[in-house]
Amino acid sequence: MTKYTGKLYGIGVGPGDPELLTVKAVRLIAAAKIIAYAAPCATESASESMARTIAAPYFPDNIVEYPIRLPMVVERAPAQKIYREAAAVLREYLSAGQDVLVLCQGDPLFYGSFMYLLPHLQADFAVEIVPGISSLMAASASLQTPLVCRNQSLAVVPAPLPDVQLRAVLAAHDTVAVLKIGRHLPRLRRLLSDMGYLPHGYYVERASQAGEFFCPLADLPYELTEAAPYFAMILVRKPGMDGN
Amino acid sequence: MTKYTGKLYGIGVGPGDPELLTVKAVRLIAAAKIIAYAAPCATESASESMARTIAAPYFPDNIVEYPIRLPMVVERAPAQKIYREAAAVLREYLSAGQDVLVLCQGDPLFYGSFMYLLPHLQADFAVEIVPGISSLMAASASLQTPLVCRNQSLAVVPAPLPDVQLRAVLAAHDTVAVLKIGRHLPRLRRLLSDMGYLPHGYYVERASQAGEFFCPLADLPYELTEAAPYFAMILVRKPGMDGN
Repeated sequence: MTKYTGKLYGIGVGPGDPELLTVKAVRLIAAAKIIAYAAPCATESASESMARTIAAPYFPDNIVEYPIRLPMVVERAPAQKIYREAAAVLREYLSAGQDVLVLCQGDPLFYGSFMYLLPHLQADFAVEIVPGISSLMAASASLQTPLVCRNQSLAVVPAPLPDVQLRAVLAAHDTVAVLKIGRHLPRLRRLLSDMGYLPHGYYVERASQAGEFFCPLADLPYELTEAAPYFAMILVRKPGMDGN
Repeated sequence: MTKYTGKLYGIGVGPGDPELLTVKAVRLIAAAKIIAYAAPCATESASESMARTIAAPYFPDNIVEYPIRLPMVVERAPAQKIYREAAAVLREYLSAGQDVLVLCQGDPLFYGSFMYLLPHLQADFAVEIVPGISSLMAASASLQTPLVCRNQSLAVVPAPLPDVQLRAVLAAHDTVAVLKIGRHLPRLRRLLSDMGYLPHGYYVERASQAGEFFCPLADLPYELTEAAPYFAMILVRKPGMDGN
């Protein structure tokens, strides 16, 4: 006799606005018994999980919540250990026949945390992934600026990449989205100015969230030496991309 | 006295599954009076609008529908003329104080048709864009394969680009999504095979729709000379991207 095991769901909850969850995500959350999500360590200042905050309006009563507490550090080793331990906990629920939802801000597989749990569990349990609206699409919607059309190409790069790599990508594509800006803002502004792309850059913070802010990169209110939030984005869209 | 004018909405309806619309898109559609969408010319075999088909379950009664009939040709000139004429029709509604929704499969600004209407109307009317789940995120969710993590970079390129450009992009990024495969399938298979990336490629057709199909590129059931559907996608994910 085959034992019934639970199903693991990776659920994208979108960029911040609770109305930007999909109908499917809302249906699954409303029927959930066990909901996991990444959250900062309790000792850190921002102790709320963004994914939980976005999806909480749809939480049913009497669920088990499992916050996966991650320290905000650059090193991979502690996070790897925490995800391995979290996977072991979720494995218990799944083995007991219970479905588990893992919420992820944005899309689960686009710089999302779900991909760190997936390899520990996908061989043994049924998995379903519900895609989410990414910050990329949310930023473009807020700016009312096309990402790409026709035969244009798009690159998405994290700001910590070295200058030489960022320069090559900026030279090669029609549109480039630079994510995870944070302390790299001064370096990126210099680099884009050097390449003549400053007039073609847009800056977006907290797309679709309360406190959303965006402007042409040249009008940025940050001092030239100042850092931006980690989740800020710069969109560079080369001239000629007018969609006409 | 300022005359009240309507608001123009660009609404992403996602990749195909009607459950992958956002809560916001459903709310706006359910309250709509005038809904526009791109559709093939009536004389063509596929005469149904994909965007309409996806969103139709949420249509209220007694709406005005405005299909923007586009010939399926490569040349830009006829489409430009049709969008200019469509914008003139929508302008009448907007000027009369009526809101207009334009539905777009996937995301409105990611190879979406909304960007061709936008420049004709955005100077004169309030605009709001609701981002949608793109085929990129839907394909990755179906494959249960991460797009990008940590400091990795992603490129999105249309298959019609020349070999030299596709090769440069494939060499430079951790993950590359090649869209609009169609008749370019044989050329892409040769190119990826030449570069040693065939074992790292995945093929996806109709992600999230009825008739969805995906497989490792090496197992593709198409003959080596055969074309794929236009909306098929190849995702190349370089080794070492295990998310751990």
